[in-house]
Amino acid sequence: MNMPATQPAPLARVQDVWARYHAVLEATEAQLSANVTSDVALVGEVARYLMGSGGKRFRPLLLASAARLSGVASPSDRPGPDPVAVLGCVVEYIHTATLLHDDVVDDGDVRRGRDAARTVWGNAGSVLVGDYLYARALSLSVTLERLEIVQVLAGVVEEMSEGEVYQLSVCGDVDLSEAVYLRIVERKTASLMSAACRLGGMLGRAKARQVGALADYGRNVGIAFQVADDTLDYQADAEVFGKALGKDLDDGKITLPLLYTLQRAAPVERERLVAIVEADGHPDADAQALVLSLMRRYGAIEDALSRARDFAAKAKTALAAAFPDGPDRQALLLLADYVVDRDH
Amino acid sequence: MNMPATQPAPLARVQDVWARYHAVLEATEAQLSANVTSDVALVGEVARYLMGSGGKRFRPLLLASAARLSGVASPSDRPGPDPVAVLGCVVEYIHTATLLHDDVVDDGDVRRGRDAARTVWGNAGSVLVGDYLYARALSLSVTLERLEIVQVLAGVVEEMSEGEVYQLSVCGDVDLSEAVYLRIVERKTASLMSAACRLGGMLGRAKARQVGALADYGRNVGIAFQVADDTLDYQADAEVFGKALGKDLDDGKITLPLLYTLQRAAPVERERLVAIVEADGHPDADAQALVLSLMRRYGAIEDALSRARDFAAKAKTALAAAFPDGPDRQALLLLADYVVDRDH
Repeated sequence: MNMPATQPAPLARVQDVWARYHAVLEATEAQLSANVTSDVALVGEVARYLMGSGGKRFRPLLLASAARLSGVASPSDRPGPDPVAVLGCVVEYIHTATLLHDDVVDDGDVRRGRDAARTVWGNAGSVLVGDYLYARALSLSVTLERLEIVQVLAGVVEEMSEGEVYQLSVCGDVDLSEAVYLRIVERKTASLMSAACRLGGMLGRAKARQVGALADYGRNVGIAFQVADDTLDYQADAEVFGKALGKDLDDGKITLPLLYTLQRAAPVERERLVAIVEADGHPDADAQALVLSLMRRYGAIEDALSRARDFAAKAKTALAAAFPDGPDRQALLLLADYVVDRDH
Repeated sequence: MNMPATQPAPLARVQDVWARYHAVLEATEAQLSANVTSDVALVGEVARYLMGSGGKRFRPLLLASAARLSGVASPSDRPGPDPVAVLGCVVEYIHTATLLHDDVVDDGDVRRGRDAARTVWGNAGSVLVGDYLYARALSLSVTLERLEIVQVLAGVVEEMSEGEVYQLSVCGDVDLSEAVYLRIVERKTASLMSAACRLGGMLGRAKARQVGALADYGRNVGIAFQVADDTLDYQADAEVFGKALGKDLDDGKITLPLLYTLQRAAPVERERLVAIVEADGHPDADAQALVLSLMRRYGAIEDALSRARDFAAKAKTALAAAFPDGPDRQALLLLADYVVDRDH
């Protein structure tokens, strides 16, 4: 029986996105295991501990979607490992390295709902295996034999570490502006997502203007992602999200919900907020309740989420202007919404 | 008046070596300042603190000598920054990054006779500025537009971090063999010196066999350097060397002098040594005196230094077999001896 040629059903849910790139994400997973080649047992142990702890491989997914959107064949039509899977592994190694180092920087004890690597192997293990993964990522990228790809990756590691140092240098600054907050977020989080999208475009036949649009999309998605994450920090249930509530507050990090609250609070409220932010150690239950009630009173959570949605919208606009409709564009548009409303 | 053409006097002292490469080392120094381009003030502050604290730029010196020996012109005959200075900056950034991370790994409080960066800016600053310098180094190396150079550098960062993790995983193992000790030293220290020499050869017109000999020379010089350093740890005067006496003992690191002593001590002495190594915290003056007196009794310091000299000799043999005599070969031969007898 002849079926009439039909348009494929448009991608409607984020699960459809994951399903569409299932094959290349499996190949990425294989690369993640295969490329920790160290004969030093502890290296593999620490790396696998974190990589096996339920990361969503969101950056490899961005890269895979951007690559397909840019005309990269799947499965790969070249001999050897699929470059999309190789670069997916590279960006995931870089991401894993930043998590290992972040835990040392923040004295973090919990990561993805279980003991942070530094709790198990100490700061030493986290710092050194992070270094190993950064270097392994760069080494792997060299195997693709394109200098401009290595340049993007070295540049992004540079930018991320600058963003983290920037954050460190304004830590506890109760007069932090939204602009500075956003510049930090752009560097420490959005730069890698932007690079993942850009690299996807570079692997394909995308024009320079389109590669630029992908980078733009990725940067805005990354900002939306981090702003939403910073907002979740004041909403999260530790069991669901693997993060303690108000962890940023503990660390003296001023993120968008707190920044809005500080800006909008009456002088006497602001004074108490400042005292809580500037105090060392964990705020007690009363202090936490006060912060949360002020955030509610001043609509800080909703407004921060609404900022996140603005960036998701910008991401979608950048993409839609540069690429025609189709399942890969639909996938990336869905992902832009998903990063803000991950719990839905 | 006509002067008869004369052979230049052979290089006789290590000062002559530094003088011979003075110009390119100055250019390297300029690169070191110019390439920390971050607009985040704290990045430059931390980086300059450590780079301005009296490092000898030994790795850039190896690179410069190897490059001249391989026919690289000095000053450079190409437009733009001298590649020897650029790569000198790259290897020095990598070295500085390892020092920043080592201090976090070892909980080190003193570096080159003053407060370690982590004492001033915390672990966070040391970890993140180390990451920045690694990434900056790789980015800079890309500007030379030779993939094989980037590959050597990414590979060496990988190898160094593996060596450090290896060291971590055998920390406090009183049955450590000399072979394992040497494999650790080769990775964590010798790999970067080897890379510096190899890169010098790659910049010039050296044949593959000669580049191999330079890498071999550098690896053996690196091993000699670290074995001598580990020996100095039991001889050093804190004011002169900027290191506390017996720091490795504190950290539970089994280095060659201690390893020899453990192997040679009578059972009852060994038992006491093991108790000291395995104890947490700083050994008291009695314990230190006991360790030092056993080292003397069993000739451990002299024998470790003699091992270091063996590696220096191997380095010289590798080099002399591959290059004809001349001031650059003389320079490298002198440096091989210098790494063992730095205090003379």
